[in-house]
Amino acid sequence: MWKPDRQGTRPLYEQIADHLEQQISYGEFPPGSLLPSERKLAEHLGVNRSTVIQAYAELRSYGIIESRSGSGTRVSRTKWGATPKHTPNWKRYAEGGHFLPNPPFMRKIREALNKNPSLIDFASGEIAADLAPMDEVANIMSTHNYTSYLGYDNPQGHGPLREELVRYLKKFRSIDTSDSSILVTSGSQQSLYLLTQCLLSPGDAVAIEDPSYSYSLPMFQSAGLRLFRLPVDQDGMCPDALIDLYKKQRIKMVFINPNYQNPSGTILTQDRREKLLKVAAELALPIVEDDPFSLTSYSGSPPLPIKSMDKFGSVIYLGSFSKIAASGLRVGWMVAPRSIVERLADARQQMDYGLSVIPQQVAMQFLRSSHFEPHLDRLRMQLQFKRDLLISTLRTEVPDLISYNIPQGGLHLWCKLLVEVHDGKLLDESIQRGVVFVPGSVYGSDSSYIRFTYARTKTEDIVPGIKKFAKALRALV
Amino acid sequence: MWKPDRQGTRPLYEQIADHLEQQISYGEFPPGSLLPSERKLAEHLGVNRSTVIQAYAELRSYGIIESRSGSGTRVSRTKWGATPKHTPNWKRYAEGGHFLPNPPFMRKIREALNKNPSLIDFASGEIAADLAPMDEVANIMSTHNYTSYLGYDNPQGHGPLREELVRYLKKFRSIDTSDSSILVTSGSQQSLYLLTQCLLSPGDAVAIEDPSYSYSLPMFQSAGLRLFRLPVDQDGMCPDALIDLYKKQRIKMVFINPNYQNPSGTILTQDRREKLLKVAAELALPIVEDDPFSLTSYSGSPPLPIKSMDKFGSVIYLGSFSKIAASGLRVGWMVAPRSIVERLADARQQMDYGLSVIPQQVAMQFLRSSHFEPHLDRLRMQLQFKRDLLISTLRTEVPDLISYNIPQGGLHLWCKLLVEVHDGKLLDESIQRGVVFVPGSVYGSDSSYIRFTYARTKTEDIVPGIKKFAKALRALV
Repeated sequence: MWKPDRQGTRPLYEQIADHLEQQISYGEFPPGSLLPSERKLAEHLGVNRSTVIQAYAELRSYGIIESRSGSGTRVSRTKWGATPKHTPNWKRYAEGGHFLPNPPFMRKIREALNKNPSLIDFASGEIAADLAPMDEVANIMSTHNYTSYLGYDNPQGHGPLREELVRYLKKFRSIDTSDSSILVTSGSQQSLYLLTQCLLSPGDAVAIEDPSYSYSLPMFQSAGLRLFRLPVDQDGMCPDALIDLYKKQRIKMVFINPNYQNPSGTILTQDRREKLLKVAAELALPIVEDDPFSLTSYSGSPPLPIKSMDKFGSVIYLGSFSKIAASGLRVGWMVAPRSIVERLADARQQMDYGLSVIPQQVAMQFLRSSHFEPHLDRLRMQLQFKRDLLISTLRTEVPDLISYNIPQGGLHLWCKLLVEVHDGKLLDESIQRGVVFVPGSVYGSDSSYIRFTYARTKTEDIVPGIKKFAKALRALV
Repeated sequence: MWKPDRQGTRPLYEQIADHLEQQISYGEFPPGSLLPSERKLAEHLGVNRSTVIQAYAELRSYGIIESRSGSGTRVSRTKWGATPKHTPNWKRYAEGGHFLPNPPFMRKIREALNKNPSLIDFASGEIAADLAPMDEVANIMSTHNYTSYLGYDNPQGHGPLREELVRYLKKFRSIDTSDSSILVTSGSQQSLYLLTQCLLSPGDAVAIEDPSYSYSLPMFQSAGLRLFRLPVDQDGMCPDALIDLYKKQRIKMVFINPNYQNPSGTILTQDRREKLLKVAAELALPIVEDDPFSLTSYSGSPPLPIKSMDKFGSVIYLGSFSKIAASGLRVGWMVAPRSIVERLADARQQMDYGLSVIPQQVAMQFLRSSHFEPHLDRLRMQLQFKRDLLISTLRTEVPDLISYNIPQGGLHLWCKLLVEVHDGKLLDESIQRGVVFVPGSVYGSDSSYIRFTYARTKTEDIVPGIKKFAKALRALV
């Protein structure tokens, strides 16, 4: 006799609903026939009555069965049995798989932006259209001859781009590597996805910073990883906390964002970098260093990556064009031991068969061109200008309600609310007044923080945007 | 006291090796100290002695411990303990995760092609460089103005491309759809990856054709799916077999490739298409129709897709540019119910944050241009020419040893060996003589079949390639 599987991951009511649906489709319960009472079926299957009630409710919602008070639950005559059921239950398929949806705040923000395009956007973590090298890209596309073969390419990425990245990493990031240790990815998102999916197993423990953009990424939870936090203060994350965490949780990998950290804007100090590498070597623990922002350094001399000091090969380094050129290129890179790069390249063949050659060629030409450094200079100046405008407006509008450290690079300002306001309520109030930001709890922080991205906001929108925000905040104080 | 976890998926010996490694790193066994004997430790942990032997062997292979006959097993003095262990055990990380490596034959073929670029290639399932619309793409890139914003784009894919695909699908495939039901993917590989990862759960049963290229894709096994086969004869797969299979295995999804099937080259007959749709509707079973080859139809009038007859919304339709234009564009598409498209688009944000805009714009411009149809005509003629040359050479060289049906479209010739030869041995022998093809067992078929892809082979290589193959085959008969 069939019984629901109590060891499985699927809820019992779903298994019961599925089983009944199958029995009905096999004709064991013809159209119009009476189903067992909830009490009886619960006894029969050895489950709570509430579980059967839920299963019946689900089948009712699909029109498979119908209940009338006093006459029990019957197989639907109109939609079932005599007529085939036709359409697959797409709703249930869409609920399958192990991918968690994006966090509710992020979906709310996306929906608000879709609904109201005039919303002032301090939320999207990218650079504005006018900061991207549009003319340079258009120029590259129209003057270079795309005569190279458009077939399946090397699984690690386009060879000439990897060679160009070797020079770039040496010149701009003081990293010595070779093209065989580079994997071209479609950005840090894919780099992180490959690392979490292919090198770690469900149940493995990983450490992330607190606060951290990683916390906003459902991919960590989707991969079944256990997330542990390393506190971040104004000097970045604390390596000592890592030792304790390792002893307790047998951490398998550490994810950090040491330069102009997202969201806090901090730089990990040199002392802590050295300490972190020492700890990593002692524990033979891999460090994943995500470094998308460093070339935005407003002073023009960004801190060197941890990877450049990595004597024992503990560090996997991630870079990207998304925050320094254009997110729509979808070109990023990973520097890792060869065995790891080969493994991830092989696994990616199963996912998407690799990147298009065309944006890789555009990225290569841009890196190689005389336009790359002037573009960076312009980007830095414009970001600094936006940061200054944001801060001076906050100083005028909400000097008493908000505090922050001034970031020296990156796209974000991380603010502490000095009054007790729930970040979610503040978001709702702000959306109503026409402005949007990201609540701190998205990054795992408590609800007294918020993140403003000034890079994405149009310059002329910064002052009116903060005025709207100030009204929203004052309305809740 | 620590014990290995017998419920987990990791082998016991690995858990033991890991645990010992940790204890050693914590200093519980200092450098040079004696470890328990294999027998004693096995007793202590309640495992077989052979498990401990395996664990010790693993630790020995990393230089962590050393054994000398007569004096037992000790913690290594030279590499361990006093000095920190430094480098993460990358080898073990590379073995983690749930992605299976590609099948051995496919890796062997790739390695052979990498090692010897003059190898004549009947194995790679793509079109040759000279069949791709290189001039058209170069022309599009140089004449169109890429002024559109290069930021994060719609998660379902570039809007103007989806609109163009609506027209394309109507005109060339008689499919009525709208842009909101289309997901642009980086090719059928990503479409299949999204479907298997996001709509199905480990343990779910799916049906694929026998033989089928799906069988060559480790992604199905990597996703933990149970694969069941539907026999393919010269009229395509048999829908009756599907009913039986469904009753026994509660199939959740059916994957078929009805037009110029890979590898068999068959076309599913109209009768069977209707029957399949009827069965799908009765069982409310989703059909995934992969249709990459149809526009290669040598007669110029390809069979219509099953999707065009799909009254009840049972069919998810997959298309791609890879086999009709250029695989290096990495542009494909899926037509599915809106709820499914939205779910998959959201999940893909976690994987790679979507496709680059640039190849999507190139694809859109190419579809919209007056060059698209002439390109298809040229492609068809050239494929037919290559097919004819391959067949006439086989007729001359191995008339007695091989049989096949002549495909009316697609890129492949599926051959039955009329003599008893193992397909793997034949591959080795052929590689030695300078030619490569795909053994039939890669597609789940028995070892008396092989697949020749004539689309990828240079025209001038077809005759010498088959001569080499004939020598290899005769050497084994």
